[in-house]
Amino acid sequence: MPAPYTLVLLRHGSSEWNEKGLFTGWVDVRLSETGVREAVHAGELLRGSGITPDIVYTSLLSRAIQTANLALAEADLLWLETRRSWRLNERHYGDLQGKDKAATQEQYGPEQFLTWRRSFDVPPPPIGDDNEFSQKDDPRYADLGSDLPATEALKDVIVRLMPYWEIEIKPQLRQDKTVLIAAHGNSLRALVKHLDSVSDEDIANLNLPTGIPLVYRLDENLRPIVPGGEYLDPAAAAAGAAAVAAQGSKK
Amino acid sequence: MPAPYTLVLLRHGSSEWNEKGLFTGWVDVRLSETGVREAVHAGELLRGSGITPDIVYTSLLSRAIQTANLALAEADLLWLETRRSWRLNERHYGDLQGKDKAATQEQYGPEQFLTWRRSFDVPPPPIGDDNEFSQKDDPRYADLGSDLPATEALKDVIVRLMPYWEIEIKPQLRQDKTVLIAAHGNSLRALVKHLDSVSDEDIANLNLPTGIPLVYRLDENLRPIVPGGEYLDPAAAAAGAAAVAAQGSKK
Repeated sequence: MPAPYTLVLLRHGSSEWNEKGLFTGWVDVRLSETGVREAVHAGELLRGSGITPDIVYTSLLSRAIQTANLALAEADLLWLETRRSWRLNERHYGDLQGKDKAATQEQYGPEQFLTWRRSFDVPPPPIGDDNEFSQKDDPRYADLGSDLPATEALKDVIVRLMPYWEIEIKPQLRQDKTVLIAAHGNSLRALVKHLDSVSDEDIANLNLPTGIPLVYRLDENLRPIVPGGEYLDPAAAAAGAAAVAAQGSKK
Repeated sequence: MPAPYTLVLLRHGSSEWNEKGLFTGWVDVRLSETGVREAVHAGELLRGSGITPDIVYTSLLSRAIQTANLALAEADLLWLETRRSWRLNERHYGDLQGKDKAATQEQYGPEQFLTWRRSFDVPPPPIGDDNEFSQKDDPRYADLGSDLPATEALKDVIVRLMPYWEIEIKPQLRQDKTVLIAAHGNSLRALVKHLDSVSDEDIANLNLPTGIPLVYRLDENLRPIVPGGEYLDPAAAAAGAAAVAAQGSKK
């Protein structure tokens, strides 16, 4: 089948814990009311774009699945084939999961805080098996064995995401299927880093806005025709990315 | 893996067109507010039952997919693997799709009306390609070719459903996976007819209530251990089945 191929990335919107200022990671919180509205709006943008995905991928986390379900309902595409994988999950935040962001910054200082948030390869301390926010006994990860992370840096997300991209998603694109991925800030940053060949240093400054589909047209080598892709609502995307970036420096 | 295996059937609740009294079939209407509540309640019943499906099947029609999504959200099971097929769709109602039920009965008389609704093998007149309620140009059925029905009797539903049961669903059960099927009055009647060996005559009187999970425990030959299965809310199920049966004689 001929290129260009079409890949659409959708970062979920605001969750209950975003609004409480807690580190979330693999904790399975739901979208907030704002997040629900963002997902519906993403569906409106998708419908208006004339892009019809052939297959949808989500993480195993409810906030990404809710986002896909709400957007697809709005776009009259609930019937699409959908596949899910833990490899699309948000970065595991280790022992920080469930902790207050502002209190963590106060306790450890802004430098350590920024390292945990944005370092390429320094993960937070691992979460204990007895921590109430551990996923050790979560049935959805029962088959993972030692692949179940106890903490992750962005580098670790790349390591577990790339096999899924290579083995599962790329073949769909090569069959000329338009692919929609509904996932998370860090799993999508990992993918964008690969697509756009962003350096380990520069990826720290790349912020994806929530709820605005990002469309990549890919050439026969699955490289972006327009580096960075194109947002379905560019003005809102620019404002959204700035807001996400500001979160890191807040408080 | 050892029997018994567990199969859960869930008929979607009230749709926008149920409430308007229109024949629906393959027309892709949404759940009504009542139908949304029924789906959420099904999720509560599922959660309360302690039954956790491993895989979920739906038709390609939004009202069944909405039902699954809402029930799974309520049961904290959004992450389950989900597969969809047109073979689980509602019976195609042919030229009656989009027509008012009461007006149809008036026009053709109660005997013909009952034949179209409940005959095992007499389908309604086929729908024309130019009928606004035809699915001829619906992208979700683009690959069906001559399998796309123009009308169906229950017998035809059985013919297109059984291969999916045999090839796709039975192997899941034999792997000891608990299967949830969210579908429609007639596709689920077709399956129940097969499971319980209901005769072509008796199936006319079998009515499945909406929104109440029906649990079959199946032996090593995938035959029901309790014929007819067991509803998660038996009293509500009996009342619901009576209400469905009354619809046929209304007006």
